[in-house]
Amino acid sequence: MKVIRTISEVRQEISRLRQSSGSGEATVGFVPTMGYLHEGHASLMRAAKEQSDIVVLSIFVNPIQFGPNEDFDSYPRDEARDVETARLQGVDIVFIPSVSEMYPEPTQTTVSVSQLTDRLCGASRPGHFDGVTTVVSKLFNIVQPQRAFFGMKDAQQVAVIQQMVNDLNMAVEIVPCPIVRESDGLALSSRNVYLSGEQREQALVLSQALRVAQETIDTNPSVTAADIREMLRKVIQASPLAVIDYSEIQAFPSLQPLADHEMVYGREDVLIALAVKFGKTRLIDNIKLHKSEVLSHV
Amino acid sequence: MKVIRTISEVRQEISRLRQSSGSGEATVGFVPTMGYLHEGHASLMRAAKEQSDIVVLSIFVNPIQFGPNEDFDSYPRDEARDVETARLQGVDIVFIPSVSEMYPEPTQTTVSVSQLTDRLCGASRPGHFDGVTTVVSKLFNIVQPQRAFFGMKDAQQVAVIQQMVNDLNMAVEIVPCPIVRESDGLALSSRNVYLSGEQREQALVLSQALRVAQETIDTNPSVTAADIREMLRKVIQASPLAVIDYSEIQAFPSLQPLADHEMVYGREDVLIALAVKFGKTRLIDNIKLHKSEVLSHV
Repeated sequence: MKVIRTISEVRQEISRLRQSSGSGEATVGFVPTMGYLHEGHASLMRAAKEQSDIVVLSIFVNPIQFGPNEDFDSYPRDEARDVETARLQGVDIVFIPSVSEMYPEPTQTTVSVSQLTDRLCGASRPGHFDGVTTVVSKLFNIVQPQRAFFGMKDAQQVAVIQQMVNDLNMAVEIVPCPIVRESDGLALSSRNVYLSGEQREQALVLSQALRVAQETIDTNPSVTAADIREMLRKVIQASPLAVIDYSEIQAFPSLQPLADHEMVYGREDVLIALAVKFGKTRLIDNIKLHKSEVLSHV
Repeated sequence: MKVIRTISEVRQEISRLRQSSGSGEATVGFVPTMGYLHEGHASLMRAAKEQSDIVVLSIFVNPIQFGPNEDFDSYPRDEARDVETARLQGVDIVFIPSVSEMYPEPTQTTVSVSQLTDRLCGASRPGHFDGVTTVVSKLFNIVQPQRAFFGMKDAQQVAVIQQMVNDLNMAVEIVPCPIVRESDGLALSSRNVYLSGEQREQALVLSQALRVAQETIDTNPSVTAADIREMLRKVIQASPLAVIDYSEIQAFPSLQPLADHEMVYGREDVLIALAVKFGKTRLIDNIKLHKSEVLSHV
């Protein structure tokens, strides 16, 4: 495994690995991350390994996707541990560019997706998704992968990136991968490290609300979107530290909110998504409905 | 030469040509156009042929780069003649997608370059360059060329696309090619067909103004940007049908206007750019200063 910090070297090394694989047909699987890797990221690397000949992981805390009052400076970083995690998963190249390598000058070019980015995290974090789609475009152009792997924990990000790929005819397949959870249900997130003991305990309310919603839908053919919205709010508000940013039920991947009267029983194109703040820490979680889906645990 | 109308087929054919060339190292040269090809386009195809193993020409009148009151519907088209022109220049693939092939749904994704697009044609044609950078991104992702060839007649477009390529780390080299002119100096343009006889005659004022500016600069070490601005206006306004949209002297490729007092003698990083309307027809022309540059004719 090589750790590479410059764009020119990562291009060279990918080209070398593809050529040395003989046929020139070797596929590149790419896992873009902001580091502080956890088992969720590891599951993406395993999926990439299974579906590709060469696995490239990037670690880059991308300043332009953070708002002025967000946690760019304090975002957790642990490069040595991340490199070890990548090695254990059989990654071939870890690309760790500096901010000045990625942005030698402030970018004048922005890739932006409209509509899909107006709501949910886009509404709370103006400009966030422009930063994401711009840096993902850059990384795709640098790595030129055949497949790229993204966690469904940020389901809106998956929808936005898939839209960008479709609209711009990018020659990459987006592979969404399931959310990975702690044994008690908390979705893994690099930001979980911010939580106090008490916040960590109350943060379970996200996965609990999603589970209750799924169970209600599975067992109640007459349940409406309005019922689910009310139920989510009630479950989450039972936690005194929880401040709801959004709790929404919508079509996926269009992210169109369901009308209040719409029935949800038996539907599979529906996403229930939550963003809840505990102190300064904002957690997200979601579930895409399946008939009798069971939340998967680590 | 193959004429291809779908994205999937053009990808297949490029891949086939690259593989059949043996080494897998065959390079693709790309000439994106809006058709109604003239000798300016032919010069781009020849440059592509010289510098690449495989030449792809696209013909696509891109609706999203036209404003609501611009000439999208009436933009001149002649596919049969264009295909013949491409054949004569040794093009390998002519890609002629329909609007619905390029935009099966309205694009939610936009690639935009700021700053550079605020002035000159960007000021007169709001949204124009977003349409250009978005469609060029799409075409680059479809064709995946090593080099792409653009005429310097739209010098701002060259600067904007180069900025996009730099900012987004696109793996393509932009090759700017010289303006091609009629023997009397008029820069070739698909839109010249709109001009009446009288307008065509008076349109010579663009290249004349540029030539007078170049000569003044070559022979007058004390000339300032303000002198040139005044001179351009005087020469153009001598033509009664000419309505100046802009006539500007700026650094290239930054497109920063020179300060009035700046000297221009002996400089090579300076672009003089004009946009002038004759009736409904808007013509552009420019010259990048060189020591003793001679305007090249067909």
